[in-house]
Amino acid sequence: MDYNALALAMHSEHRGKIEIKGKVRVKNRDDLSTAYTPGVAEPCRKIAENPDAVWEYTTRGNMVAVVTDGTAVLGLGDIGPLAALPVMEGKALLFKEFAGVDAVPVCLDTKEPDEIVAAVRAIAPTYGGINLEDISAPRCFDVERRLQEALDIPVFHDDQHGTAIVVSAALINAIRLTGRELSDTRIVINGPGAAGTAITKMLADLGARDVTVCDRRGALYAGREGVTGHKAELAAMTNPRGIQGPLANALVGADVFIGVSSAKLVTPEMVKSMAERPIIFAMANPTPEISYAEALEAGAYIVGTGRSDCPNQINNVLAFPGVFRGALDVRAREINSAMKAAAVHALADFVGDGLSRERIIPGAFEPGVAEAVARAVAAAARESGAARI
Amino acid sequence: MDYNALALAMHSEHRGKIEIKGKVRVKNRDDLSTAYTPGVAEPCRKIAENPDAVWEYTTRGNMVAVVTDGTAVLGLGDIGPLAALPVMEGKALLFKEFAGVDAVPVCLDTKEPDEIVAAVRAIAPTYGGINLEDISAPRCFDVERRLQEALDIPVFHDDQHGTAIVVSAALINAIRLTGRELSDTRIVINGPGAAGTAITKMLADLGARDVTVCDRRGALYAGREGVTGHKAELAAMTNPRGIQGPLANALVGADVFIGVSSAKLVTPEMVKSMAERPIIFAMANPTPEISYAEALEAGAYIVGTGRSDCPNQINNVLAFPGVFRGALDVRAREINSAMKAAAVHALADFVGDGLSRERIIPGAFEPGVAEAVARAVAAAARESGAARI
Repeated sequence: MDYNALALAMHSEHRGKIEIKGKVRVKNRDDLSTAYTPGVAEPCRKIAENPDAVWEYTTRGNMVAVVTDGTAVLGLGDIGPLAALPVMEGKALLFKEFAGVDAVPVCLDTKEPDEIVAAVRAIAPTYGGINLEDISAPRCFDVERRLQEALDIPVFHDDQHGTAIVVSAALINAIRLTGRELSDTRIVINGPGAAGTAITKMLADLGARDVTVCDRRGALYAGREGVTGHKAELAAMTNPRGIQGPLANALVGADVFIGVSSAKLVTPEMVKSMAERPIIFAMANPTPEISYAEALEAGAYIVGTGRSDCPNQINNVLAFPGVFRGALDVRAREINSAMKAAAVHALADFVGDGLSRERIIPGAFEPGVAEAVARAVAAAARESGAARI
Repeated sequence: MDYNALALAMHSEHRGKIEIKGKVRVKNRDDLSTAYTPGVAEPCRKIAENPDAVWEYTTRGNMVAVVTDGTAVLGLGDIGPLAALPVMEGKALLFKEFAGVDAVPVCLDTKEPDEIVAAVRAIAPTYGGINLEDISAPRCFDVERRLQEALDIPVFHDDQHGTAIVVSAALINAIRLTGRELSDTRIVINGPGAAGTAITKMLADLGARDVTVCDRRGALYAGREGVTGHKAELAAMTNPRGIQGPLANALVGADVFIGVSSAKLVTPEMVKSMAERPIIFAMANPTPEISYAEALEAGAYIVGTGRSDCPNQINNVLAFPGVFRGALDVRAREINSAMKAAAVHALADFVGDGLSRERIIPGAFEPGVAEAVARAVAAAARESGAARI
């Protein structure tokens, strides 16, 4: 199908994808006096007396801002806040369709981290959570950390953590199938951007001990010249065997390749150089690092991609709706490591008895996925002290 | 009716009053590929190539932010951004119900004009218009002016201009009934806050030449000690006969009293001291400066209040939905004086042949009001060069 043409027609026909709907009607003076003045003063007074009443009397507890500066939109790069709006509306639509979360786009006319942080802090009282989206690395790390410190609601950069949750769930199931243990698995991650960095950290949290991260120049290792910032941090926590040189070097003998980089970087020869029954997650969009078919042909045992036309689609929509649903349900103050890990295990376990090489992760439209993730996230929020209720 | 109890129950039952609704559904992979990746990249590219395409492919052209800092909410004062949220949701609900405008609350966690301006500038790409709400005077004047200068979308402080439009329309009809001309009418405005200031300026725009504004200390006049800022500006442009002293002095011989101040400030004696067939707009909420019945009894010829239980309710809902509807319909860059004046005349003319002492303004629920205002505002936007289309 020509999704480009379909998308243009659909976006033009409806002028965007979301709208506001009243939960109540205003058809006469009594309605107006209840939903607006003078009646509305009463919930206002209740909240002024007790700020926690905001969760009881307003939309805040179900409202999420999808915030971007338009600097890293899909594969299009820095296209600015206006051009990013269709993606943010799409995200808002998915939040509602998959988890009943009311989300609104917030496209920011600034790329300055200080200004982004100030703007999001300013508008935060309106929302029960902040979903950061398509903000380029490394600025996204600083912006997220500062907002998390400043706010008492969840701040979640989906390109990082949503991706990391789904990849981790898929990987847990893949290594189950290959009889490995995560702690003994040699993993190579290509692309130390937002997603790659979060995947690295999440896999470490989950028990991985042999992860090597590559950028365009090859493996990151402690002391590599010119490596600073978040790459230096990654180098310090990974690559225990001190691999140097290009991606091809790192892949020799590796069990797992995780690509969050660019199209067609991985050759069949590289796959053949890996350990027995290698696992390939080639998630570059829309064209993977190596195609599903090519990877299988080269000997990959399990292959996942971002594509909807292949098995094992690794798609963020499996995570973010349920993660926010769970966090909002318990009025969480944050989305912490325990909550993210709970989402990983809920997603991995959802596959159940159907686990196979072509089904390491649920399908995007399987009923109950978001609910299962939400329940696990809410429970973890309560156990870890992040929940208000 | 006990609107306080009704309002608490309604707000609690629904957890607020608005929600997000998809204009399209996402039920399968094709839907997902059209509304989200990969198809969504195509409208993104179109907007990146031509920013004006944002009006074609997104919600921006119908989306308004209802922005407050929570400093002047209803009669409750500075109750903060959380407690202001029920009012902003109510406003968003009315925008949709009365004019099909999609509006979202934005409650700001700052009272600093610099920070308010920075935050609204930052989020502006998301919206086709900004409705400022319940920001206290005199900060509201500075905030609005700076945002109007910075943004190429309408910025409209409803407490100022919405009120001024409805009051002006009601006054035009009231003086028609009493056979006066606006230019010869002696008008006293009590309360030089956001509403009083905007009413003064709008009446001057419309041709009034004898307006006197009073604050708690009495009439503003050029040179009154301690009068600075916007009050000094008002003093310089009003009070041609140099009235001094309390409100009672200013009312002697006046044709019109416009109260946007506090309950029960006007006595029957003051009304009796006015000119023949005086016009009284007593709009303090919820208790007027003088009650409808008392004003009539004291000799007022026409009385308007903010109350829904009396004739001639002067209610902002008559203006803001249609004003924004008209501005959005032509993708206006601003809401200028010509557009506001067009709204005034459209509202005044809407009463038509039914004009009487008890019907100087349409009722809030009369069908067609917002449409009539919108048509007039859109036409004025085109004539004045504020329209993009």
